[in-house]
Amino acid sequence: MAIDYDLVLEELKKEAGPLAKIFLDKAMDALEIKDLNDSNYKDVLDVLKMNPTLKKYVEAVEKRLNGI
Amino acid sequence: MAIDYDLVLEELKKEAGPLAKIFLDKAMDALEIKDLNDSNYKDVLDVLKMNPTLKKYVEAVEKRLNGI
Repeated sequence: MAIDYDLVLEELKKEAGPLAKIFLDKAMDALEIKDLNDSNYKDVLDVLKMNPTLKKYVEAVEKRLNGI
Repeated sequence: MAIDYDLVLEELKKEAGPLAKIFLDKAMDALEIKDLNDSNYKDVLDVLKMNPTLKKYVEAVEKRLNGI
């Protein structure tokens, strides 16, 4: 299964709720990433993990996505 | 000398021009950082460095700021 925006968003929402979309979009915007894929999603998760509020949620998502 | 938003912005502008402000603000927004100081500016520069277009400019800024 390939990683895309919808999948990452769905996994983030499971952990952190609907507001996750705002932070996902901000992180992508900061990196000038228009769409998520296997090669760039880790950078976006790294940015999200630098937000102390989100760190633990993102780590849980990361573990699941790394197993895909 | 302490590091603050104006100083980081000024240094980034020297390297990358006026558009640097947009990226600085986006990176701070993604991390939910309201103001820059000695303890959080490195996180913001790390995000900026993850943008391939900005990487070399930000590295130059980082070297100067680390020497402050």
